[in-house]
Amino acid sequence: MTDVFGSSQKDVHEQVVFCADEQSGLRAIIAIHNTALGPGLGGTRFYPYESESAALADVLNLAKGMSYKNALAGLDLGGGKAVIIGDPAHDKNEALLRAYGRFVQSLGGRYVTACDVGTYSEDMDIIARESRYVTGRSPAYGGAGDSSILTAFGVFQGMRASAERVYGTPSLHGRRVGVEGVGKVGHRLVELLREDGAEVVICDVAPKAVERVRLRHPEVEVVADAAELTGSDIDVFAPCALGGALDDATVSRLRAKIVCGGANNQLAHPGVEKQLAERGILYAPDYVVNSGGVIQVADEIEGFDMERARSKAAQIYDTTLKIFQIAADEGVPPAVAADRLAERRMSEVGRIRGIWLGR
Amino acid sequence: MTDVFGSSQKDVHEQVVFCADEQSGLRAIIAIHNTALGPGLGGTRFYPYESESAALADVLNLAKGMSYKNALAGLDLGGGKAVIIGDPAHDKNEALLRAYGRFVQSLGGRYVTACDVGTYSEDMDIIARESRYVTGRSPAYGGAGDSSILTAFGVFQGMRASAERVYGTPSLHGRRVGVEGVGKVGHRLVELLREDGAEVVICDVAPKAVERVRLRHPEVEVVADAAELTGSDIDVFAPCALGGALDDATVSRLRAKIVCGGANNQLAHPGVEKQLAERGILYAPDYVVNSGGVIQVADEIEGFDMERARSKAAQIYDTTLKIFQIAADEGVPPAVAADRLAERRMSEVGRIRGIWLGR
Repeated sequence: MTDVFGSSQKDVHEQVVFCADEQSGLRAIIAIHNTALGPGLGGTRFYPYESESAALADVLNLAKGMSYKNALAGLDLGGGKAVIIGDPAHDKNEALLRAYGRFVQSLGGRYVTACDVGTYSEDMDIIARESRYVTGRSPAYGGAGDSSILTAFGVFQGMRASAERVYGTPSLHGRRVGVEGVGKVGHRLVELLREDGAEVVICDVAPKAVERVRLRHPEVEVVADAAELTGSDIDVFAPCALGGALDDATVSRLRAKIVCGGANNQLAHPGVEKQLAERGILYAPDYVVNSGGVIQVADEIEGFDMERARSKAAQIYDTTLKIFQIAADEGVPPAVAADRLAERRMSEVGRIRGIWLGR
Repeated sequence: MTDVFGSSQKDVHEQVVFCADEQSGLRAIIAIHNTALGPGLGGTRFYPYESESAALADVLNLAKGMSYKNALAGLDLGGGKAVIIGDPAHDKNEALLRAYGRFVQSLGGRYVTACDVGTYSEDMDIIARESRYVTGRSPAYGGAGDSSILTAFGVFQGMRASAERVYGTPSLHGRRVGVEGVGKVGHRLVELLREDGAEVVICDVAPKAVERVRLRHPEVEVVADAAELTGSDIDVFAPCALGGALDDATVSRLRAKIVCGGANNQLAHPGVEKQLAERGILYAPDYVVNSGGVIQVADEIEGFDMERARSKAAQIYDTTLKIFQIAADEGVPPAVAADRLAERRMSEVGRIRGIWLGR
């Protein structure tokens, strides 16, 4: 089994909480990676993990990712994540979710939960009957609604920053952009790209998703699959489907000058960021440009305001530019620069809490 | 590694919290076994465990034990325990203890800590600078002082109940009692036994401890070791030294009619309780009769009052008698009867919290 405390000093999580309720069968792990900037925010994944060990490894990794994402999103939030071990189709019920809610509450706000794979706004509403520290709720309860709106908006801002860096202008007008995956985020990105005057090429494993885009935008070009898309003559590649889009084969085939998309964990393995840099392809780090979603959901904490959230998500433009600058100044790929910027914010802004204000 | 959630349903712990602080090097595990009766109370052990796995196994086992001990002690407290991984002689310092205190505080009172192996009242005073949920403090901060006073008093009450059951009278007058270990608890027990008119035989690995008893009570007989003590003609055997005093060899040699002492985990392995019963030896379960210490420490939570604490510890007499009665009625050894009584209290009294009173 994975050791909770880990072997390396850098991978230390502040607090990892195993929660069980005998009657409802709840088995959950809440991981709080870092609270230097505020309570750890991250969704609750409900998934039939094969083992406790697999669940632990996943939650540790995801919680750490949230520390970095929330830090660069400019939020006053640290990184956290939770997993409930079980099959949501069979094991999810009111008692289990409310037992889980009591454990979220027991942490006194050090962890704030939200939706993730296997959980929905309606589940958050149930969890919120036992805890104040719940976001991602349904609109009737003040929820921010579909977070893919600002996710797509944020990706678009990251792409504009990338264009500014590569072409000297943030406009995508006349650029050819390949979008892999036109689901919740991808089809909204197509919308923004077309408004800006870009040419768009798409692919998706789901014919219905392709059809929806073609109905609104008959001018959009469709290719068979990701291999054809990444091999075609595009200026920008936007991975918006599953993780791991950037593997060795894809990178060597890629003719785009920019990679910027909404998918999570786009780099198939460590080292791909260097291959991209060596090939002169500018990579806008995934967790930076897709943070519009968490910005939207986090805004609920103060009472959701779409305009305020949108203006926060617009900052992704500046953050992405800053990361490219650090990458150039320090001679590292943008993915490394992003991690450094996140760590600096956690360290520098986190430190100011040392200034005494009273209990 | 031990799985946190365990394989059997009966071994489920409500909450197990791994806490780490990079700077101070803190690595702690807080286990909350059951809160049906109230917050989990149990000490913080500071010990150089060989592995995270060993620390986890220990804290899970100890926390569960505290649920049963606190339940039978009649306290409004559940079971919890904590371990800090490290060598107290080298790794203990203010920053580490205060970081630990913040994690105790983060649980909002679901866990209340106290002293254990490797931690002292002065450490609790430091932890209390970060958390309200600390007991076992030094007398200057309202602490209950040396908890061996009521531990010994409680063991004596359990022994009186055992005498009542075996001889029809609670008095130890004229009985020959062998006390193994005359340290903090044992020497106080000798005091109480002599006051009651018992004949006392002692042994201890530390000559100084023996000397201290002999100075006050020259009439007390001294034997070489535990083997000689348990093989001698005694009516009552009181193990007050390390755990595991009751192994197969000791039980087969034992001529006493009663075993009742202050040591923890007296049964060397499961099954010894049956051997004792088969040999007609009445065993007063260790965690029942040695709960005077936790009663004393827990009393601090309301502001320590020695007389109130003593009257609660006096209840150990009734509880022990009740356990013997359940053992007889249900045809099980007293150790099993004690577990059943504890589980019934957790279930029956815990359930009443379901009666709604407002938030």
